[in-house]
Amino acid sequence: MRIVIDAMGSDDYPTPDVAGAVLAAREWDDDIIIVGREEAIRQEMARHDTAGLKLEIVHAPEVIEMDDEPAWAAREKKNSSMHVGMTLVREGEADAYVSAGNTGGVLAVATLHTLRRIRGVKRPALAAILPLPAGRFVTLDIGANADCRPEYLIQFALMGHTYARAVLGCPEPRVALLSNGEEPGKGNTLVKDTYKLMSSSDLNFNFIGNFEPKEALAGEADVVVADGFTGNVFIKTLEATAKMLTNLIREEIKASPVTAMGGLLAKPAFGRVARRVDPFEVGGGPLLGVNGVVIVGHGRSNARAIKNAIGQARKAVQGGVVEAIRAGLAEEQP
Amino acid sequence: MRIVIDAMGSDDYPTPDVAGAVLAAREWDDDIIIVGREEAIRQEMARHDTAGLKLEIVHAPEVIEMDDEPAWAAREKKNSSMHVGMTLVREGEADAYVSAGNTGGVLAVATLHTLRRIRGVKRPALAAILPLPAGRFVTLDIGANADCRPEYLIQFALMGHTYARAVLGCPEPRVALLSNGEEPGKGNTLVKDTYKLMSSSDLNFNFIGNFEPKEALAGEADVVVADGFTGNVFIKTLEATAKMLTNLIREEIKASPVTAMGGLLAKPAFGRVARRVDPFEVGGGPLLGVNGVVIVGHGRSNARAIKNAIGQARKAVQGGVVEAIRAGLAEEQP
Repeated sequence: MRIVIDAMGSDDYPTPDVAGAVLAAREWDDDIIIVGREEAIRQEMARHDTAGLKLEIVHAPEVIEMDDEPAWAAREKKNSSMHVGMTLVREGEADAYVSAGNTGGVLAVATLHTLRRIRGVKRPALAAILPLPAGRFVTLDIGANADCRPEYLIQFALMGHTYARAVLGCPEPRVALLSNGEEPGKGNTLVKDTYKLMSSSDLNFNFIGNFEPKEALAGEADVVVADGFTGNVFIKTLEATAKMLTNLIREEIKASPVTAMGGLLAKPAFGRVARRVDPFEVGGGPLLGVNGVVIVGHGRSNARAIKNAIGQARKAVQGGVVEAIRAGLAEEQP
Repeated sequence: MRIVIDAMGSDDYPTPDVAGAVLAAREWDDDIIIVGREEAIRQEMARHDTAGLKLEIVHAPEVIEMDDEPAWAAREKKNSSMHVGMTLVREGEADAYVSAGNTGGVLAVATLHTLRRIRGVKRPALAAILPLPAGRFVTLDIGANADCRPEYLIQFALMGHTYARAVLGCPEPRVALLSNGEEPGKGNTLVKDTYKLMSSSDLNFNFIGNFEPKEALAGEADVVVADGFTGNVFIKTLEATAKMLTNLIREEIKASPVTAMGGLLAKPAFGRVARRVDPFEVGGGPLLGVNGVVIVGHGRSNARAIKNAIGQARKAVQGGVVEAIRAGLAEEQP
């Protein structure tokens, strides 16, 4: 397998990106292709022992920065590491592309300039794999499409189902719609119409109904479907609440010597908590619906997160996600 | 001041509801009118020392239950504690109504059968007062209107502004739109259109732009405006994440004797954390845009939460929220 990693992705590029590539090359027997400014990548690689590792560099002179306007950058920076990296996938010279860079940039370069939509896909969707105490689940769309129609959400459900089967190893993923109540009549117009459409259609996935956030977090579904606006608010509220609560607990524990001592003794427990909900253990989420495996990581990724994002890409390739989505869509539209 | 408390509201009615009324009558010098099944209320009151307290009972034979379909119950149970209680407010015999009952029921009885909309209000909205480490803020709509238009959101903003001034004591509340990004161009169509309308209008409140959940939780706004679907997902995700994380921490602390000992020492810190984000300290959120003060508490309310919801009602009456909303709307629509 050959996996492209964008060296110019993360907030601190190319340091964590290259370090993650080295970790991945050490752990798995895949070819890792590091795309970006060659000189910067070489300097970074010199800090690691790369003897015997299957690492290649492909030069790309331009960088789509975090604060670049995505559509503009995708159009104007044709020699960016995103364009060059995804073109390798499109040309069959690599199997997957991984980046912790500008999400809108990855979306625009993938859908408009390189890989493009799978035939029949109405809108590609960005998914997150959420690591929770109750297990992992896929949620999509988390931001590619702020305004959606029921037909898009049905396709998101199908793509999420396919990904959960291939990558999370669920034989029959339970697919739920994110809503403001569990009953069939709940939701805004989009959710109500989607519910009706899903209930009356002959679906090739297991639709289990509407879910409130609490059922989603309790691990009662493997795929949670939303429009990209609601899905984005959902995962960002989850992240922000976890961070707020963690900071508050830290502050209050430090506030007195006795509780500080308690915090010290309880530290291993906090470590276990952090590991059980650590987004860096997952590393990244897939952009689904384009002609190739694309994994988008968090800008704050460290080397371990990058390595795990590469691990996601491996599983998606092994699970034949792109082919399965193609086949699922062909079945859906006779 | 005369405040109505619905005795048949909470999940465990009338126990916490009556107990909360007694606490409120002890703390403040107001008349508390307990509405519901007289016999059940008398039995409950007999468990408290009510000598010298200004407590009255008004009988209402019917109960709108938690699992009643709201529109049906509001239409069919005309002698419910909700109808009788809100009618007292409408007739000027009481100043405010508090219930921990079926939220949809309160909404339907208030807007369709008793208090009705303030002239000029397009849609009443349900607000939550979120108690966070960074301070309290008002968020609305959290569920009254799943589908919204920009004109509704502008009115929600104005009503939230009015409430924050009257009840949270902010002289110049900062009003933000909940969105999937901070930049002006971010959001779904509703948020984008609302942003444009707010930016081009001569507003009588301080609009500070789009906010992601993290800025909202950091206390950077006093009023956070959303459609009722997104607002509902926002606060339910917040609640569900806090609960999930709390349970996980408890589980991991108990998992070994040393961390359990640490947990014991750190217990006062956890107590302080719980108090700083305790929804029962707030007690309830207002239904804004109807002709009267209405506070809706959580079904799981205990006596303290009921008392604090009555406290919210007092502040809303003292702050002249209903009159201020009327005046604000009159100013908005010349």
